[in-house]
Amino acid sequence: MFVTVFLLLVALCAHGGNGEDSEETQRPGHVSVIIVGGTGDLAKKYLWQGFFQLYINQVSSGNTFSFYGGGLSPGEKATPVFFEILKAVSCTKDVSQERCALLKEQFLRLSQYRQLKTLEDYQDLAKDIEKQLQQEGMTEAGRLFYLSVPAFAYADIAEKINSSCRPTSGAWLRVVLEKPFGHDYRSAQVLASQLGSALKDEEMYRIDHYLGKQVVSKILPFRTENRKYLDPIWNRHHIERVEIVLKETLDVKGRIPFYDQYGVIRDVLQNHLTEVMTLLTMKLPANVSNSEEVLQNKLQIFSSLLPLGKNQAVIGQYQTYKSEVQQELNKTKDHVTLTPTFAAVLAHINEAQYEGVPILLISGKMLDERVGYARILFKNDVFCLQNHNNVHCKAKQIIFYFGHGSLQYPAVLVSKNLFKPAVTGSEWKEVTEHKDVSVLGLPISDYYVQTPAEEKEAYSELISHIFAGRKNSFISTENLLASWGMWTSLLSSLTSSFPRIYPGGAENGDMLDVRLRGKDISYNSEVVIISPDKMGDASANSFKVMQGKFRSADMVSAWTEELVETLAADMQEVAEAAIHEGGVFHLAVSGGSTPLALFHRLAVHHFTFPWRNTHVWMVDERCVPLTEPESNFYSVHENLLKHVKIPYYNIHPMPVQLNQRLCVEDDGGVLLYEKELSRLVNGSSFHFVLLGVGYDGHTASLFPGVKADQHGQSLVALTESPSKPHQRMSLTFNAINRAHKVVLLVMGKGKHELVTQLSRVKDALDKYPVTGVKPANGSLVWYIDYDALIG
Amino acid sequence: MFVTVFLLLVALCAHGGNGEDSEETQRPGHVSVIIVGGTGDLAKKYLWQGFFQLYINQVSSGNTFSFYGGGLSPGEKATPVFFEILKAVSCTKDVSQERCALLKEQFLRLSQYRQLKTLEDYQDLAKDIEKQLQQEGMTEAGRLFYLSVPAFAYADIAEKINSSCRPTSGAWLRVVLEKPFGHDYRSAQVLASQLGSALKDEEMYRIDHYLGKQVVSKILPFRTENRKYLDPIWNRHHIERVEIVLKETLDVKGRIPFYDQYGVIRDVLQNHLTEVMTLLTMKLPANVSNSEEVLQNKLQIFSSLLPLGKNQAVIGQYQTYKSEVQQELNKTKDHVTLTPTFAAVLAHINEAQYEGVPILLISGKMLDERVGYARILFKNDVFCLQNHNNVHCKAKQIIFYFGHGSLQYPAVLVSKNLFKPAVTGSEWKEVTEHKDVSVLGLPISDYYVQTPAEEKEAYSELISHIFAGRKNSFISTENLLASWGMWTSLLSSLTSSFPRIYPGGAENGDMLDVRLRGKDISYNSEVVIISPDKMGDASANSFKVMQGKFRSADMVSAWTEELVETLAADMQEVAEAAIHEGGVFHLAVSGGSTPLALFHRLAVHHFTFPWRNTHVWMVDERCVPLTEPESNFYSVHENLLKHVKIPYYNIHPMPVQLNQRLCVEDDGGVLLYEKELSRLVNGSSFHFVLLGVGYDGHTASLFPGVKADQHGQSLVALTESPSKPHQRMSLTFNAINRAHKVVLLVMGKGKHELVTQLSRVKDALDKYPVTGVKPANGSLVWYIDYDALIG
Repeated sequence: MFVTVFLLLVALCAHGGNGEDSEETQRPGHVSVIIVGGTGDLAKKYLWQGFFQLYINQVSSGNTFSFYGGGLSPGEKATPVFFEILKAVSCTKDVSQERCALLKEQFLRLSQYRQLKTLEDYQDLAKDIEKQLQQEGMTEAGRLFYLSVPAFAYADIAEKINSSCRPTSGAWLRVVLEKPFGHDYRSAQVLASQLGSALKDEEMYRIDHYLGKQVVSKILPFRTENRKYLDPIWNRHHIERVEIVLKETLDVKGRIPFYDQYGVIRDVLQNHLTEVMTLLTMKLPANVSNSEEVLQNKLQIFSSLLPLGKNQAVIGQYQTYKSEVQQELNKTKDHVTLTPTFAAVLAHINEAQYEGVPILLISGKMLDERVGYARILFKNDVFCLQNHNNVHCKAKQIIFYFGHGSLQYPAVLVSKNLFKPAVTGSEWKEVTEHKDVSVLGLPISDYYVQTPAEEKEAYSELISHIFAGRKNSFISTENLLASWGMWTSLLSSLTSSFPRIYPGGAENGDMLDVRLRGKDISYNSEVVIISPDKMGDASANSFKVMQGKFRSADMVSAWTEELVETLAADMQEVAEAAIHEGGVFHLAVSGGSTPLALFHRLAVHHFTFPWRNTHVWMVDERCVPLTEPESNFYSVHENLLKHVKIPYYNIHPMPVQLNQRLCVEDDGGVLLYEKELSRLVNGSSFHFVLLGVGYDGHTASLFPGVKADQHGQSLVALTESPSKPHQRMSLTFNAINRAHKVVLLVMGKGKHELVTQLSRVKDALDKYPVTGVKPANGSLVWYIDYDALIG
Repeated sequence: MFVTVFLLLVALCAHGGNGEDSEETQRPGHVSVIIVGGTGDLAKKYLWQGFFQLYINQVSSGNTFSFYGGGLSPGEKATPVFFEILKAVSCTKDVSQERCALLKEQFLRLSQYRQLKTLEDYQDLAKDIEKQLQQEGMTEAGRLFYLSVPAFAYADIAEKINSSCRPTSGAWLRVVLEKPFGHDYRSAQVLASQLGSALKDEEMYRIDHYLGKQVVSKILPFRTENRKYLDPIWNRHHIERVEIVLKETLDVKGRIPFYDQYGVIRDVLQNHLTEVMTLLTMKLPANVSNSEEVLQNKLQIFSSLLPLGKNQAVIGQYQTYKSEVQQELNKTKDHVTLTPTFAAVLAHINEAQYEGVPILLISGKMLDERVGYARILFKNDVFCLQNHNNVHCKAKQIIFYFGHGSLQYPAVLVSKNLFKPAVTGSEWKEVTEHKDVSVLGLPISDYYVQTPAEEKEAYSELISHIFAGRKNSFISTENLLASWGMWTSLLSSLTSSFPRIYPGGAENGDMLDVRLRGKDISYNSEVVIISPDKMGDASANSFKVMQGKFRSADMVSAWTEELVETLAADMQEVAEAAIHEGGVFHLAVSGGSTPLALFHRLAVHHFTFPWRNTHVWMVDERCVPLTEPESNFYSVHENLLKHVKIPYYNIHPMPVQLNQRLCVEDDGGVLLYEKELSRLVNGSSFHFVLLGVGYDGHTASLFPGVKADQHGQSLVALTESPSKPHQRMSLTFNAINRAHKVVLLVMGKGKHELVTQLSRVKDALDKYPVTGVKPANGSLVWYIDYDALIG
C-alpha cells in the first residue's frame, strides 16, 4: 500500500512547493500523518481536505508521505467509511481535472485506516512505520498526530504516543490538539501538565482555527505594513472602541451535551475572540514571524488586562435552549440551565496606549445574522465647521471582516477618510468594483477594500503551518493559561447569574443591545419584572443599605457591592470635607484582600476623588521589599495608586527596608515613619484609617497577645505575626485611636463566625486585638457585608 | 433737576422689587449711577436700557436714584444727544403703556449729562452729589461708575474716582469695566495693579457680557439640578469632546483700529469662550451662589490646563481683511497683517475626570452662519446588536445654545436618549412644540428643550447683578490673570504665524475644518503651495534633521521641534533595546528647563514608551524639599512622571532631605543614593544619561572650578553652585562616564555663544565642566538645535 510517488509526481507538477513553507528549512524525508479520530466530523469536513492540499503542495518538495486514519472501530468496519471520506477531497481551481484525478489516486494509495485503541495498536503502528522506512530505505522527516477526539482522551493518547510512537533518529514529532483545552484555569492547568509529562511544549500544536482564517492572520501584517499611518492613531486618543463580534443564526441543537457544559464564553470568547483581541492590541513584534516575540507581546496584553468581574459582562440564552437541554439531556421540565448562548463582555487594557478604550467581545447563537468581524472605530477627530456632508465628517473605522454578513467574503476594510492601505505581495488584492452594499454603517464605496487573492480554508492553512513548524499560528501553553486567567474569574462570578432570555432571530429587537458605563457593561433596555421605580427610591435604598449598631459603634451593612459603593462614597465625602477645611486629606490604608474591592471602586468610579490633595499612609507592612507581591504597599500600589493621579510625594510607604536590610531596629525605620507622620499630619490624627480584621481577631499588624500599653506613646512599632512573614511594621493603637474616623471593613462568609463572636465579647485586647480600636475623639464605623453579618 | 420720586412711584408700582436682588441685603438709600462714556455706542445700545430696567425693578425698593451720563464733550453739545438716547429706552411687555410713559418721564427727570474730563469735573460731580444728598436729607446707598470708554483710559479715570468721588459714610463704590483687560498677561497685570492702587478688588466689576447671557448663567444651575444624571457621565469615559463655538457672519469693518490690535483670540476666546469652558468643567461648588467657592473652582481648572502651544491652534483671516486694514489704518498695499479673524484652539484639562477629552474653542468672523453654542458630545456608549434605527444608537449630546443659528432662541437641549432634565423654578420652561428644525445633527424632536420663560438682555441682567453685588457674575483679578496665563503663551507662539486666508461665507467650504491628532490640532485640508511629496521623503527629512560631529562626538541638529522628536524617538529605541536585553532601562535625567519639551513629547506622543520597565534617576538635585517648585525632581514629576504610568518603586529622587534636614553630610544621603544605584543598576552604568549645559558651561551640578579627581571613585557628591540654592547633590563625572549613552541637549539662541566657544576650546574641565563628559565605554551624542548652533 505504500509507494514512493515522488519521481512520478515531479513530472506532473506544474507549480513548485508552497514557498511559505520553505521559511523553515526542514530535512526532506518521509512524513507520517496520523489523524486520530480520522473518520469523525471534523476530519471529514476539513482535515483530510487540508492534508490533501498539503500533499499537493509538497509533492515536489522532496518529502514523501503516508496518511493514517485512526479510530476506535476495527478496520473492517471503518475502512470503507474512511475511503468514502477521502474520495470527497478536491483540488483548487488551478489544478487541471486530469492532474487532480491522478493526485487523488496517489493520495488514496498513500492512505490507510488503522484501529488505534490500545497501547498495542500504537506500538504496531510505530513498528509498521519503522518497517516501511527500512524497506524503502527512506530517511524519516517526522510524525504528525492530529488528535481529532474529545478532549478527555488527550492525555491518554499523548501518553501512548510518547511511550510507543516517538520517531527515532532525530525526526520531529508534532501532536495537534483542538479546543476545548480545559474548562477553566485549573482544569486547563491540569490538562497542560498531563500533556506536558508526555510531550514537549514544542511538540504540541494547539489549534484555534480562527488563527487560520486569512483575515485574522492578516491582522499583524496589516498593522506592520501600515505602521506609518497607524502609529499616530492606534491609541486611546483616537480609538473610540474596539468591537470583536461573532454573530450566529444557528442554535446548538444536537451539540447540547457538549455545549451545556461550556456555553458561549468558553466556546467562542475565551479562544477565538480573545486571540483576535491580542492580535489587535499587542505591541508589534520587530519580526512578525518570530514566534517567541509574538508570544511575549501577547502575554503582555494579558497581564495588562483589567480584571473581569460580573459588571463586565452580560449574558443571554435563547428561549428554546432550555427545552433543548431538557430533551437532549433527559431532564425534567423544571430543570434550569444557566449556560449562556449569548455574551457581551467589556475588557480594558490598562496601558497608557489603550487606557479607557472599551474592547467589546460579543458572540451569540440565534441572532439575526451570521457575521464575524473586528472593528476598530476611531473617534471622529474632525470638526466640520461648515460643510457637514464632507467625507471627513463621516465615521472612521478599520474592519477585519471574517466573512458572511452583508459582504459575504473575507476582507479588510479601511474608511477612505483614514488612509489608503498598502497592498503587498500577491496574496491579497484590492477590490475596486463593488455591489451596492453597506458594511457597519457605511456604504462599501466609502472603504478601501482588500480581500485574499484566493480564499483558503482555515484548516488547510493551519495544516500547512503545522507542517512548516510555524508555532505562532498556535496556542502555546503560556498563552492558553493566560487566557484562562483572564476568563476564569469572570466565569466563576457568573455561575449563579441568570441569563436574559431572548426569542431568537429578528425578534430579539433591541433586547440584546448593551450599554457601557465607565468600566461596566449592562443591557441597554430594562426587562422589568418588578419595577424598581415602584418601590420608591428611599425604600429601595434602605433595603439595600442598612444602618445599625455593632459593639456599640455605628455599623453600615449591605450586600458586598453596595457596601463597597457606600464606603467609597463616604470616604470621598470625608476627603472633601477635610480638604475643604485644611487643604489636605490624610488616609491610612491596610493591605490584604478585603480593601481590594474598595480600591477598585475608587479607581474606576470616583473620578472626582481629590487625590491631588490626598496623602496615603500605610496602616501596616510586612518586612519584605516593597516590590514583592507580598508587600502590603505593593498591593495598594497595584490596585489603587497606579490607577489614580496622586503626586509622588503624597505616597508614604513604610520604611521597612533601610540600608538594604529589612526591619532592623538600628536602622530606625519606626522612628522615621513616626517623624514623617508627626511632621505632615496635624496632631498625628489621620482623617481616615481603613482597617480590616483577621480571622484571629487581629487588626493592622496588632496580633493576639498584644498588650494595651505595649507600645506606650509610640505611633509606629515593629511587631511579630504568627504567620509568615513574621516581622511587621504597624501603626499602634495610639496612632489608630487618634484618628478622626476609623473604619473597620469586614466582608465575606468566612468572617461570619468572627463577627458573631465579636458581637458578644467585651473588650478583650489580648484575644481580639480589634476590640482595642476605640478612637478617643473620633468616630468608629463598622462596614460589614451581609455575608459576614448573616452568614 | 433732581427730585425725590420715591413716594410718587410707590403708588404706581404694581409689582415689587426684583426678588433676586434682595439676596444681598443692602442698606436702602440713594444711588448715583454714572456712565462714563454715556453717549457712546454701548451705552446707547444696551446700558441705558439696562439701567432703566434696573430703575423700574427698584422703584418700590426704598432706593432712590440719579443717573449721570458722562463724556468728554461739553454739556451744551452732548446733552441733546444724551436725551435722544434716553428717550429710546423701552419697558418690558408686562408694563402697561401708561405706566411705562410715566416711568420714562421720571427716568429722564432723574438723569443729566455732565462733562467728565478733568479732575475738577469729577470733583464737581462729587460735590453736587454730596450737596443733593444733603439738600434732600437722604442717606447714600452707593455710587456706581460704569466705564464705557477705551481701556487705556481706565487707570486715569479710576484714579480720579478714587481721589475725588469716593462716597463718605459707608456707602458702596462700584466701578464697572469692560474688556479688553489688557493685551496679554503682562499688560493685564500692569492694568490690574494700576487699578488696584485706586480701587479695592471688591469695588471692581469686570464685565464679560457672556456671563449675563441666560443660557451661560444656566450652566452651573443645570449641572447642579441634574447632578444625579450627570455625575456618572460627566467624565472622560463618557464625554467624547466639548465644543464651544461662536460663529459670526459679519466682518470687522469700521472696528479695525481696535480689532487689528487684538484679533479673535483676545476678542472672543480669551474671555467669552474661556468663561464658558470653566463653567462647563469646574468642580461644582457646594453652593452655586458662593462667589468665593465658584472662583476657587474656576481657578483650579486654569491650573489643570495643559499648556497651549502653536500645535494647539489654527488661525485664519478672511480674505478682504487685509485691504480693510490697509484702508482704515492708512497703510500701503504691501502692508501685511497677521491678525487672525478665525481661530480654533484645542485645550485639555489634565485631571483624571477629563483626561484626554478634547475641548475645542472656536470663533470666527465671516463664516456661513451666526450661531453660538457649547456642545458636550458624549461617546456613543451603546452597542446596537441588531436594531440600528433605535433612538439609543443615535448621538448623545447636551447643548447650551446661546442663540441665533437654526434654532433662533436661547435654549438648553438634551438628547432624549440621555435623560429628561429637571425644570425648576419659574425662570425656565420646557418647549414641547417645535418647528421642524435640526440642531447640530439631530432633529429638534430628538431633544428635551428648555428655554428662558422670558428672554432677558445680557447687559440688563449684569446691571441687576452689579446692583445686587453678585460678584460671581464678574471676572475677578485672579480669574483674569489665570485666563491670560492660559492664553499668553499661545499668543506669543503665534506672533509670526501666517493665518490661512479664507474667502468668507459659504465659500469657505471645508477650508476651516479642523482635525485633532492626539493633543494637536491642524486644518483638515491641506492648502498646498509646494507639495512636500514632490520634494521626496528622504530629502525633506535630511533637510530637517542633520547628523554631524561636535567636539569629535556625534551631533544631531535640527529645528527645536524636530530635534526633540528625534531625541524622544532615539531614547525610546535605546529603552527598548535595553529592556529587550536585560529587562530594564535605567535613565538618569537632569532638571532645568531644557528637557521640558522632551518630557512633554514623551508624555504626549510616546504611548508605547516602556515606562513599566524604566527606572528614573536624577542627574542632580537642589537641596530643597522635593515638593518645592525649585526642586529638579518636582519639575521632572510635574512635567513627566505624573503623566506616565511608571511604578512608584521605579522612581528614584535624590535623598536630599533626610531626618528633616537638607543635604547634611552626617545624614549620608550621598552614600544612600550611591548604594541604591549600585544595587539596582548593573555595573552602575546607566543606559541613558540626559544632560544639559548651563551658560557657564556647567553640566549636572558640576560647576566651573571642579577638578577631575575631586570626587574620586564616588558616584554621587554634594557640590556648591555659584547661584542659589547653593547646595546641590549631583552625579559625578565617574558616574556619568560609566553610562552606555550620554546625551547633551542644548537648545535656544541664548546658548549660541557657548556652543561657539565649546566648538573651539580643548578640554577645560575647570572652565567648562561639560568638557569632562567623556563616556569611557559608552557613546556621547550632542543634540543641538539650530538656534543654538547657528544663532
